[in-house]
Amino acid sequence: MDRNFLVEATKRQMPSKRWEHTQGVIDVAVRLAKKYGADPAKADLAALLHDYCKYWPIEEQVRIVKQYKLPEDLLDYDPQLLHGPVAAVVVRNEFGIEDEEVLDAIRYHTSGRERMTLLDKIVCLADYIEPGRDFPGVNKIRDIAEHSLEKALVAGFDSTIQFLLAKGKKVYPLTVVARNALIDEWKQAERES
Amino acid sequence: MDRNFLVEATKRQMPSKRWEHTQGVIDVAVRLAKKYGADPAKADLAALLHDYCKYWPIEEQVRIVKQYKLPEDLLDYDPQLLHGPVAAVVVRNEFGIEDEEVLDAIRYHTSGRERMTLLDKIVCLADYIEPGRDFPGVNKIRDIAEHSLEKALVAGFDSTIQFLLAKGKKVYPLTVVARNALIDEWKQAERES
Repeated sequence: MDRNFLVEATKRQMPSKRWEHTQGVIDVAVRLAKKYGADPAKADLAALLHDYCKYWPIEEQVRIVKQYKLPEDLLDYDPQLLHGPVAAVVVRNEFGIEDEEVLDAIRYHTSGRERMTLLDKIVCLADYIEPGRDFPGVNKIRDIAEHSLEKALVAGFDSTIQFLLAKGKKVYPLTVVARNALIDEWKQAERES
Repeated sequence: MDRNFLVEATKRQMPSKRWEHTQGVIDVAVRLAKKYGADPAKADLAALLHDYCKYWPIEEQVRIVKQYKLPEDLLDYDPQLLHGPVAAVVVRNEFGIEDEEVLDAIRYHTSGRERMTLLDKIVCLADYIEPGRDFPGVNKIRDIAEHSLEKALVAGFDSTIQFLLAKGKKVYPLTVVARNALIDEWKQAERES
């Protein structure tokens, strides 16, 4: 699939501000992929498409969750959780993308999951720290990202969880499971080093 | 079972400071039970025994988790999570307590769980707000407890989760599930009122 075709198709799905964000995620994801030994082409593709459905009507996203029997517990939480799993279905159908590693990185870019692949981590983290992001602590996460994907991602999830606690909103349990697994990973790495 | 016998047996399991805490939890739990329509005798019994194993050696608590096939994921988190589930086993064996409502309130007093009973909520909350407790925000939780068990308990779990995030520790997913369910409950109650 021609990259320019995917770029044009993706731009049509979102306001220009979000396209700028997507470009930031692409740049950071490709850079992190080169730094940490993931496939830059896969990072580019997953980052390009990660927000493909972000601005679709929620009802349409809900319809896809039901039609494709995605985990129904997604519907019990903030609707922001839907666009990743929905995009993984849509880009497979619309563009014939079959690379499960790329689809997973798109699918789990918001929630994380228990055993995140290197590509999952890179796309999720790039989404937190691309240059257009501005939330409390983002510069610290950018610094941590230079030496540990896992620690940076935990700090990212911490900021999400703190935001949800402060707002009295529910926390998606998979995100907590993802964070716990990353902490185990980095402790394991420290024991082995 | 004679209450004085249980009191003496419980006092022997812990330092005097913790026995003072237990008395505080009993007082608050009985008061909340009367206020919110739970059985004060059950609240008294569960509160009396909730920390029965808190000062037992961790290895002994781990042994009981394994012997009684309690959920093994308990062992992947802070050892503080063990003493509730372990006490539920021990007080059944040692004192013949068979009241599942009381045993559940003991079992889940630290973690919470998805569908907390009125007694679960009361014992868990009393443990957060008994007069000897002093952590940031505890007075606010005491105030909230006067009008909503669910909101007060969410605020309690928030303080636990925030503490764990700040320390870089793992969060037990059941606590997040418990908090989510309480938020659903209070929103449901608000819709119906």
